[in-house]
Amino acid sequence: MKLAQEGDLVLLMTRKRKQFIVRLVGGGELQTHKGLIRFDDLIGQPLGREVTTHLGHYFLVLEPSLHDLIKNLRRNTQIMFPKDIGYLLLKMNIGPGSRVVEAGAGSGALTLALARAVSPTGRVFSYEARSDIIALARRNLERVGLLEWVELQERDIAHGFDEQDVDALFLDLRSPWDHLPAARAALKPGGYFGAILPTTNQVSELLRALRNAGLGLIEVQELLLRSSKAVPARLRPADRMVAHTGYLIFARKLLSLELMEEWREKRRPRAVERTKAREAEVGN
Amino acid sequence: MKLAQEGDLVLLMTRKRKQFIVRLVGGGELQTHKGLIRFDDLIGQPLGREVTTHLGHYFLVLEPSLHDLIKNLRRNTQIMFPKDIGYLLLKMNIGPGSRVVEAGAGSGALTLALARAVSPTGRVFSYEARSDIIALARRNLERVGLLEWVELQERDIAHGFDEQDVDALFLDLRSPWDHLPAARAALKPGGYFGAILPTTNQVSELLRALRNAGLGLIEVQELLLRSSKAVPARLRPADRMVAHTGYLIFARKLLSLELMEEWREKRRPRAVERTKAREAEVGN
Amino acid sequence: MKLAQEGDLVLLMTRKRKQFIVRLVGGGELQTHKGLIRFDDLIGQPLGREVTTHLGHYFLVLEPSLHDLIKNLRRNTQIMFPKDIGYLLLKMNIGPGSRVVEAGAGSGALTLALARAVSPTGRVFSYEARSDIIALARRNLERVGLLEWVELQERDIAHGFDEQDVDALFLDLRSPWDHLPAARAALKPGGYFGAILPTTNQVSELLRALRNAGLGLIEVQELLLRSSKAVPARLRPADRMVAHTGYLIFARKLLSLELMEEWREKRRPRAVERTKAREAEVGN
Amino acid sequence: MKLAQEGDLVLLMTRKRKQFIVRLVGGGELQTHKGLIRFDDLIGQPLGREVTTHLGHYFLVLEPSLHDLIKNLRRNTQIMFPKDIGYLLLKMNIGPGSRVVEAGAGSGALTLALARAVSPTGRVFSYEARSDIIALARRNLERVGLLEWVELQERDIAHGFDEQDVDALFLDLRSPWDHLPAARAALKPGGYFGAILPTTNQVSELLRALRNAGLGLIEVQELLLRSSKAVPARLRPADRMVAHTGYLIFARKLLSLELMEEWREKRRPRAVERTKAREAEVGN
Repeated sequence: MKLAQEGDLVLLMTRKRKQFIVRLVGGGELQTHKGLIRFDDLIGQPLGREVTTHLGHYFLVLEPSLHDLIKNLRRNTQIMFPKDIGYLLLKMNIGPGSRVVEAGAGSGALTLALARAVSPTGRVFSYEARSDIIALARRNLERVGLLEWVELQERDIAHGFDEQDVDALFLDLRSPWDHLPAARAALKPGGYFGAILPTTNQVSELLRALRNAGLGLIEVQELLLRSSKAVPARLRPADRMVAHTGYLIFARKLLSLELMEEWREKRRPRAVERTKAREAEVGN
Repeated sequence: MKLAQEGDLVLLMTRKRKQFIVRLVGGGELQTHKGLIRFDDLIGQPLGREVTTHLGHYFLVLEPSLHDLIKNLRRNTQIMFPKDIGYLLLKMNIGPGSRVVEAGAGSGALTLALARAVSPTGRVFSYEARSDIIALARRNLERVGLLEWVELQERDIAHGFDEQDVDALFLDLRSPWDHLPAARAALKPGGYFGAILPTTNQVSELLRALRNAGLGLIEVQELLLRSSKAVPARLRPADRMVAHTGYLIFARKLLSLELMEEWREKRRPRAVERTKAREAEVGN
Repeated sequence: MKLAQEGDLVLLMTRKRKQFIVRLVGGGELQTHKGLIRFDDLIGQPLGREVTTHLGHYFLVLEPSLHDLIKNLRRNTQIMFPKDIGYLLLKMNIGPGSRVVEAGAGSGALTLALARAVSPTGRVFSYEARSDIIALARRNLERVGLLEWVELQERDIAHGFDEQDVDALFLDLRSPWDHLPAARAALKPGGYFGAILPTTNQVSELLRALRNAGLGLIEVQELLLRSSKAVPARLRPADRMVAHTGYLIFARKLLSLELMEEWREKRRPRAVERTKAREAEVGN
Repeated sequence: MKLAQEGDLVLLMTRKRKQFIVRLVGGGELQTHKGLIRFDDLIGQPLGREVTTHLGHYFLVLEPSLHDLIKNLRRNTQIMFPKDIGYLLLKMNIGPGSRVVEAGAGSGALTLALARAVSPTGRVFSYEARSDIIALARRNLERVGLLEWVELQERDIAHGFDEQDVDALFLDLRSPWDHLPAARAALKPGGYFGAILPTTNQVSELLRALRNAGLGLIEVQELLLRSSKAVPARLRPADRMVAHTGYLIFARKLLSLELMEEWREKRRPRAVERTKAREAEVGN
């Protein structure tokens, strides 16, 4: 059975589900208003159990998931939500070995997930203009041991990206439409473009720009996460939910602009019918 | 620039977005009612471009994403949707190196995603009782080159799982509550349990069983994917959407049943407040 | 017990829930591919029971609800959905005695509901430019006996409305922003303005125009209706749902434009907090 | 132009949208922490304008809508939301002249809307077992001038309802399944049954009971209200929303139990297809 090792990240959680993520250093300790936990009491011990502070309060000791790490990130920017990150990884075909460009890095929530997904053979190229934010992203990546797969570039992307033929490129910026030629130049043919935007006005502007940028198969989607109260005899959705994080926009680099012209005119994205058609006809 | 190679899987798509996924074999061809495409015309050529059939119809040639592979799977069972798969990978902390148990395999949609996520150093142990379905899952995995990371077990799980100390375990079965002791036995302490169920009655029954199974930190969630029509001047949600795929249930293996007893009583899953608390207090 | 009378509208429904709405005329009959039903067999008989056609097929005989009438309207235009209509009636304070302006009438779905709601002492002023559509709306209103409360005006509203001091005014038009001065002129101070628009671009344009039109307390909302399969042991949401009908925009006529200027700047529509504040502080 | 009269209810709203609903009594005043407003300054004046307190703070003076009245009700119980109330009025065909039974009355939110909808010729029969709650409902109805159309019955409904042949009957109770024979006895043939329930377990239990109660055409629905931030250049959904108020269950009284038996077996509620069928075939 795997035991907690010195150097491991662990998640300590109170019975009210307040969470603390710490790295186990010999002789170290976590001080909270519920009391003190000494790391030497955790090292060499199994996870999944409760310990008590010197004041007698209980903390559950767990391995933090990528989800936990993202939710608990030190941040000074709005971060992406796990529901959106999980979906775009699949949608943009990001996996072990992928080479991915990201801008801006922000506090590193998406960067973390990208680094984990592309490891051990891929690479994330992450651009961010603000030096304070990139320093934070670097600390966050280092802390969870994922910096190795990331090249953080402290740079405005006005002059484009250094990479070419990357598998996927994601923009989490205010005006992604300004960077489409650069994005296209960095992507391999057929490569995956993605962006997240909070407002409908921005989505419209990006869609307008995508039309002329040699990026096709455009989709706009949003994900709503609805939690239920986990009470067997009174199962019901929670009273409140997050209603909006952002619109996800996906596209793929196509080879000729003439081609795009034709695709655009033919395109009638009727999701339901398309799915049916797909299910009926794809057999191969 | 990467070119299509003999042996690659490619996605061929008509202008009405009908999709065909094929493996490029020298001398091979795809026959559709729109005409014939010869694979020799694709091998050694770039992706992301259009080709024409002998009848003059256009097909776009693309690398298929994991998302495309899942949506276009040959299936004789209901398959999981990418929105749910992407989320559970993050939530259950599945990444390169993870050891994951899955039952039942079904047509292999989740298996595909698990295999991709855990490669190249992890392993998926996939159980399925029906021999016809497991044969289909095997063909699907072979076809996309991911069988290497999967051990398919044609077996009822009534007698439990062979594995121990696995990182995560997912049940896509009618009555997961029957298999919780086996699931717990297979998981490492703190390991991730997940399940998907279509009906509220099943969710209630699973929640009831989880209470007595040494699995805690229970959550019930569902994801709704809403697409928009990608027209810049007339941006609006699509007319129809998939309203339900299933409820996702997550839990973690905790070490003692006494512990669970206490957790249970304290647990009041108030999602919004919890998030706030987390954001306010987690500083580490 | 109330019995079906000659002249009543009744809803006839097959066991597959196909619906026919007819007016009972002595000697009349309904011919369907399932056979013939003679109205004389229904007149003087109770509702809520089944009858058989001459071919032995069953039809349930019911009083049609306003909901049924709206769903089954003869139409040559997109009609509003009951979920949206029911909400706006409350939101715009429309009830017995209200005087309401509507444009355009379309096939009369909203008109029906407005007429029912304002009767017997109120009045609906309904504008529609196309003569064929207004003829259809008139037939629909006559058929359900609600024409009495409606003044149908076959007229473009470019030159404004004839009414003044109306309680509420609803625009179901492509460019409601062109008619805000006219709308304001027709409304009483504090009166209710409403509109429905399918695209986000239109909503933005209307919001822009409302800012300068002396209409304040602006809200944008949408309603999603999710049905469940009504099976007690397998309760679950239906597989598919209507994802979008339109955005509802509400505002109220305020008295001075200077006032609006100030309101606009102060306005921060944070729905959740507002509700809490309201609940905490409103004591009156 | 209509002016505020002595005796009118008015809504006073701060610039932060805090709301106060008061009845204008000569010589009266509203005292808030923002200062004092004298009713004599409002009587005889137009609505839709701003006034200032003696401390110089602004309040907007408006006629309250039914929606405002419901949201601002004095309450000691959970109340129904306007989105649900508006929908059920249409769905259950409640309008001027309808005779409607309701239990329990609670603080009177639904009662208010029912009374308004059935006036001036209909009647609401409202049952409530707790005397403190019924006193509150009575005060709420009196205050808004709608008590005239309501018969409040302080009584447990264990022994049934006094009324017969009512058009519609709505249950907002913990265990509506206990009262189905009484509900059926009170309804006219074809009459409308409705209920609201928070948990899925309750919905399943009600569905089970409805099967044997001579109530058919059963539907289960829920409404989600999503607000947007009303900023033209940054249009986007609000960050948070109410995720759950309750499931609405609708049914209609059918005449024979044998009939129900057959309906039940035939029933396959496939919402999307049904709608299509309806649209295609209903021509009448």
